[in-house]
Amino acid sequence: MGLEKPLVINIMKDIQSQRDERFINIRKVGVKDISYPITVLDKANKVQHTLAKVNMYVNLPHQFKGIHMSRFIEVLNRFHGRINFRSFHAILKEMVERLQAEAAHMEIEFPYFLKKKRIINKPELIEYRCSMYGTLDSSDSLSLKIDVPISPPTPVQIDSGLPGSLGLWGFARTSLSFRHFIWIEYIIDMVEKVTSHDLRWPVDKRAAAERYLSVESMADSLAQKLVTHPDICKFKVTVENFARGFTTYASIQGP
Amino acid sequence: MGLEKPLVINIMKDIQSQRDERFINIRKVGVKDISYPITVLDKANKVQHTLAKVNMYVNLPHQFKGIHMSRFIEVLNRFHGRINFRSFHAILKEMVERLQAEAAHMEIEFPYFLKKKRIINKPELIEYRCSMYGTLDSSDSLSLKIDVPISPPTPVQIDSGLPGSLGLWGFARTSLSFRHFIWIEYIIDMVEKVTSHDLRWPVDKRAAAERYLSVESMADSLAQKLVTHPDICKFKVTVENFARGFTTYASIQGP
Amino acid sequence: MGLEKPLVINIMKDIQSQRDERFINIRKVGVKDISYPITVLDKANKVQHTLAKVNMYVNLPHQFKGIHMSRFIEVLNRFHGRINFRSFHAILKEMVERLQAEAAHMEIEFPYFLKKKRIINKPELIEYRCSMYGTLDSSDSLSLKIDVPISPPTPVQIDSGLPGSLGLWGFARTSLSFRHFIWIEYIIDMVEKVTSHDLRWPVDKRAAAERYLSVESMADSLAQKLVTHPDICKFKVTVENFARGFTTYASIQGP
Amino acid sequence: MGLEKPLVINIMKDIQSQRDERFINIRKVGVKDISYPITVLDKANKVQHTLAKVNMYVNLPHQFKGIHMSRFIEVLNRFHGRINFRSFHAILKEMVERLQAEAAHMEIEFPYFLKKKRIINKPELIEYRCSMYGTLDSSDSLSLKIDVPISPPTPVQIDSGLPGSLGLWGFARTSLSFRHFIWIEYIIDMVEKVTSHDLRWPVDKRAAAERYLSVESMADSLAQKLVTHPDICKFKVTVENFARGFTTYASIQGP
Repeated sequence: MGLEKPLVINIMKDIQSQRDERFINIRKVGVKDISYPITVLDKANKVQHTLAKVNMYVNLPHQFKGIHMSRFIEVLNRFHGRINFRSFHAILKEMVERLQAEAAHMEIEFPYFLKKKRIINKPELIEYRCSMYGTLDSSDSLSLKIDVPISPPTPVQIDSGLPGSLGLWGFARTSLSFRHFIWIEYIIDMVEKVTSHDLRWPVDKRAAAERYLSVESMADSLAQKLVTHPDICKFKVTVENFARGFTTYASIQGP
Repeated sequence: MGLEKPLVINIMKDIQSQRDERFINIRKVGVKDISYPITVLDKANKVQHTLAKVNMYVNLPHQFKGIHMSRFIEVLNRFHGRINFRSFHAILKEMVERLQAEAAHMEIEFPYFLKKKRIINKPELIEYRCSMYGTLDSSDSLSLKIDVPISPPTPVQIDSGLPGSLGLWGFARTSLSFRHFIWIEYIIDMVEKVTSHDLRWPVDKRAAAERYLSVESMADSLAQKLVTHPDICKFKVTVENFARGFTTYASIQGP
Repeated sequence: MGLEKPLVINIMKDIQSQRDERFINIRKVGVKDISYPITVLDKANKVQHTLAKVNMYVNLPHQFKGIHMSRFIEVLNRFHGRINFRSFHAILKEMVERLQAEAAHMEIEFPYFLKKKRIINKPELIEYRCSMYGTLDSSDSLSLKIDVPISPPTPVQIDSGLPGSLGLWGFARTSLSFRHFIWIEYIIDMVEKVTSHDLRWPVDKRAAAERYLSVESMADSLAQKLVTHPDICKFKVTVENFARGFTTYASIQGP
Repeated sequence: MGLEKPLVINIMKDIQSQRDERFINIRKVGVKDISYPITVLDKANKVQHTLAKVNMYVNLPHQFKGIHMSRFIEVLNRFHGRINFRSFHAILKEMVERLQAEAAHMEIEFPYFLKKKRIINKPELIEYRCSMYGTLDSSDSLSLKIDVPISPPTPVQIDSGLPGSLGLWGFARTSLSFRHFIWIEYIIDMVEKVTSHDLRWPVDKRAAAERYLSVESMADSLAQKLVTHPDICKFKVTVENFARGFTTYASIQGP
């Protein structure tokens, strides 16, 4: 088999070379799932140390020949301690240059922590999964994704003896690209105003329930907030609910 | 380093050989995370095809020398299509013999499906994570673990407009060893009678809430059912709740 | 807050209604991560029972109003025991009809098992992660993705005392859409001929190593096989390598 | 059902109360999977910011009554920024006191990063999964677990054209309790000296291969190092290998 193989490959290469230019035009190389300590801007404490999963890849024009995978790690190491929104463009530019690529992409996924008063009255450290995704090709784009957990308050009077929440209802995943810098805290607050709406208010409980406790209406409410926001140019919002052993979800993309 | 190493090892071996008999007395070898299609007894349909994760290991008396890891797989393959409660003992016995072991252990984890009417009135296929764990040494033991998801009904009148459940509240993990064969269906029903107790009954709503919606009281209620059951000789029950971004749990072991 | 909210929403709705038609045009609803037992066509044994993770979603024209999430499950249950390549189109069609959708999508991910002689000479049950993905909108498409694990043979003479393989090198992920039905077995064989190429042949060991043990050259070799295949109309191949604590990969898309 | 229930429970409680004292004697409550930013001692840089998964639980003497789950979080928050080897005992003591428990347990799992020259000659940030586990009851114990990835060098001459490593061979999991403080770095170095032993040395290649590339012999070599170490009082070592689609492992416990 070893001997015939090169022959077969050569023949295929001839056929291939004719098809190549027209057809096979997307070639990517990259690195995935790199655990990497990063520092994120934090409104209350200036910086927050956290741990990212990093994915980096480039599009290549013709051939894979001569790619040094270690260069991805070298670029990452050069920005050690300075990986954030502001350096994203510079990192992507260095990827394009060092790997002689047509386009560069990077995704950084990390947990972000905020002290919040939830359920009980003492502040807890709540975890929000975030990710930043940037692309550099002819144009330049950067987006931010945030997962906000949803545990709606128990919809009965406070003296019922029931706990404040009846479970993890689901998540609101908001993905944004924006015109100006936005604090992660700001987006989380905006989302939580919609998702944790207090169902205990006495007037028209039924209408409230209908509006707030379906994935469709919650996605709608969030989309309405995002589509009119002056600093947000594109968004996608997905609301997920775990109430039934599997996940139901609704998703809206805009503008 | 290569040259000095064997020397160092030999010296250590001498020290070691004196300590060995007194101290290092637990040596195990095994295989883990083998995906394997199995057939489980099903009360309604006789058998159910599912997919297991299999872990097998043995205790060895003195030395690892001469272990053939492939023998674990050979034993498994010989019982292909016949892996269940009844064959567990035979599989463990063959492990002891073929691997000349002092003791043999096997764990089989699999999802089990039951048609249940939940929330909506149409039957859904509900997934219950199960596992069987067996040991064969001087004695012989077999236990069964079942995870039952908990989504308590919304604690208000049915005409409130609210959905039937407000989220995945948590899980009840029941681990049992028994005197006589027990159907998986029977245990699931027993657990669900406690965990899905209808909070909409009008009398003493507050007391009901208190009793049923804390991990401690739910674990207590389950333990009371299990400790008095004539066919169950040992149990462990753990109730987990996801309402707060992390998991709280309570666990009771008996008898 | 409860009182002001509806007002704000109404104002936004007016703004929104003008933007809606032009901008927010992608609305999806669906279900995710449903564990579901399925039956797959198997070349050697006719059928194979396995366990799928099912994702289903639809695109909606204007509004979410009136969606019954339970209908996804009803459709799935109606095809219970008949979910496979051949029924995919019918399932998607029923989703479009029952949910009054513009487009329907379904993904079914499942492990597929084959008896293979690997490393040792006895047949083992090897697990291959597969997934089928189908879309029905104006046109109709169906694709198949298969993950083939790569454990290249140890590149030295067979009498070296070394084990047959030195680790899990990585995976080859092949994603295909095709003109005619293709057996899963056929694609796996095709991939394994490239990925497990025996490096022990004596001639030009160095060239062989270079060709076969980089993600780029392995992706190239696979792409050459796929691009010339008469039954395959589109493909994507990604080769991943775990040798370094993170994953490196190369990906080619064609034709 | 609601009406009969309390009656049944009362009867069971009577039976139960007689059995309680003799039988049901292990009651635990706790919190699990809390994501929490921590600071770990680092030999080269003094401290290292990382992200832990925290599990905390206590054993309770008689009853669950009156447990406040939020107290676990309060204890954790009081030690925010000071969670490490040295504070472990104080945290456990505070858990016992605040929850009026018989015993307290805490496990902290976190990734630890070290700059290492691996395969290529430039330093990479390598991730090691670590966990600390402490118990406070009549006595007091603390142990440290470290996972060291194993990618043995390719066992042929350096000019073969082959990459430096042929895959992720597996992991060495070392679990220790010790008499004196030991640096994480020290244990990792000790383990890597055994697991990455260079197979390219010319003398007796066959013997080397046999000794180093089986999970049994690698576990033996590690146990020999640990059993004779003056600062280590107890250990467990498990070596896992991924070469075959499932995991094989060997484990030794001592002294």
